[in-house]
Amino acid sequence: MNDQHRAVPIQKFGSRLESTDDFVTIEEPLEIRIRYFDKRQIRENSLSVTMRTPGDDLDLACGFLLSEGIVKDYSQIQEAVLGADWGDAPSAENVVSIQLHEGAQFDPDSLLRHFYTTSSCGVCGKVSLATVKVHVPSHLPSDFKISADQITLLPNNLRNRQMEFSKTGGLHASALFDSDAKILRVREDVGRHNALDKLLGSFRESGLESLRTSGLLLSGRASFELLQKAAIAGIPLVASIGPPSSLAIDLARDQDITLIGFLRDETFNLYHGERVVRD
Amino acid sequence: MNDQHRAVPIQKFGSRLESTDDFVTIEEPLEIRIRYFDKRQIRENSLSVTMRTPGDDLDLACGFLLSEGIVKDYSQIQEAVLGADWGDAPSAENVVSIQLHEGAQFDPDSLLRHFYTTSSCGVCGKVSLATVKVHVPSHLPSDFKISADQITLLPNNLRNRQMEFSKTGGLHASALFDSDAKILRVREDVGRHNALDKLLGSFRESGLESLRTSGLLLSGRASFELLQKAAIAGIPLVASIGPPSSLAIDLARDQDITLIGFLRDETFNLYHGERVVRD
Repeated sequence: MNDQHRAVPIQKFGSRLESTDDFVTIEEPLEIRIRYFDKRQIRENSLSVTMRTPGDDLDLACGFLLSEGIVKDYSQIQEAVLGADWGDAPSAENVVSIQLHEGAQFDPDSLLRHFYTTSSCGVCGKVSLATVKVHVPSHLPSDFKISADQITLLPNNLRNRQMEFSKTGGLHASALFDSDAKILRVREDVGRHNALDKLLGSFRESGLESLRTSGLLLSGRASFELLQKAAIAGIPLVASIGPPSSLAIDLARDQDITLIGFLRDETFNLYHGERVVRD
Repeated sequence: MNDQHRAVPIQKFGSRLESTDDFVTIEEPLEIRIRYFDKRQIRENSLSVTMRTPGDDLDLACGFLLSEGIVKDYSQIQEAVLGADWGDAPSAENVVSIQLHEGAQFDPDSLLRHFYTTSSCGVCGKVSLATVKVHVPSHLPSDFKISADQITLLPNNLRNRQMEFSKTGGLHASALFDSDAKILRVREDVGRHNALDKLLGSFRESGLESLRTSGLLLSGRASFELLQKAAIAGIPLVASIGPPSSLAIDLARDQDITLIGFLRDETFNLYHGERVVRD
């Protein structure tokens, strides 16, 4: 039993009835707060509450700020603090406060605009795609390529890495891999957006460059919102074990992200892109 | 090809490379708006934008209002209209406007409170559970029971019903079943919350009574938010093919909802409750 799961007593029904313990994934809310300078005064806003699996909470919060386009890069962040170091939060361990640099280019009105665009724009696919374009920084061109044979190794490579982490079967995974299909880093969470934000946030000290020469592996489906986060982070290839949605494919085409779905041990579907090399 | 999926050209990598078509689940944003009387004047608010699979959009919007506790029952709703019948929405087919009755007991400030509680309360599990309690109406007691043998029939019964609907493999399902494990109604969506809201909203004309004598079957995991919606709708038993989260179990105990997880064709785990009859 660790932070990510806990034992609960259950009755297991099968050929016989058994009273036993089951390990269940911990799901708890995390509040993400932002502190920024506004005319030399410090202001604080609550940005989001997300249901997440505890652990890597600073990464989660920093990744959220990046992948939602609230900061352009991690250099704008002065400090990320776990717990209610300031303020009056009721439960310190489920709060992350992120303080931006005084010099950071940050327009507090953009917060309002941000939540306006996520909550009120995008009512047709075209508007959504236009909104993404505004948020996606112009990335350096990436020459990332990977062979079709290597791609089919990814599900097994992920399973081997996930076994180190998950005991409950209840976690989504996001993983970064190189052109040899080596899993570079994995993050898991009860929420798939959180798994990706944790992965992206884990690069806040080493920088984002390595994201541009790596592929992203998703344990489930590839939704529009996950592709959007990958696009904003500058990831050139996304491979999902599950299927992509229609709008995820539209976004992949629009941003020229190579998109793979239904990835199995021997087969996969290529929905868009030129980064897969046929052996 | 219908509203729920569309064909896209793909390259299928396997023992040989094949150019073919794949059916992908449609994912598009839906904006839910509410119109209500405030001192005899009609006001309109944008409530939510959700990424959903088109179809059953009126059910989705009405179910959302109920399961989020914004209306207490469907009698408060005068009319649900697909498209921007009023207002200046950019894309009519992706908007639902819900008009409340003038006599409906509705406090516009509760909207603010609602989004405050979902976005700023609940920072510890205990606060979350307290918030749910406020929203859960006092339901009539339910005598719903089901035998362990019948429960193990549910996965197969759902698969048989889902085959009628989904061709893409990309959809989550929520289904209502009776004490003979008969699937009464299924709704599917690219988002699992939406699948449940569509199911709940489909009862807006027949009323909610039958929900209190039925079980809810979830094709994936049982998260806190899905249990919360089930609790507010008064459903006495939830069975999920996947595992429940820790907070979902806490809520099931708190509201005395019988909770089943890891439901397979021959086995399942009982996490809480007395509604399973051993044969």
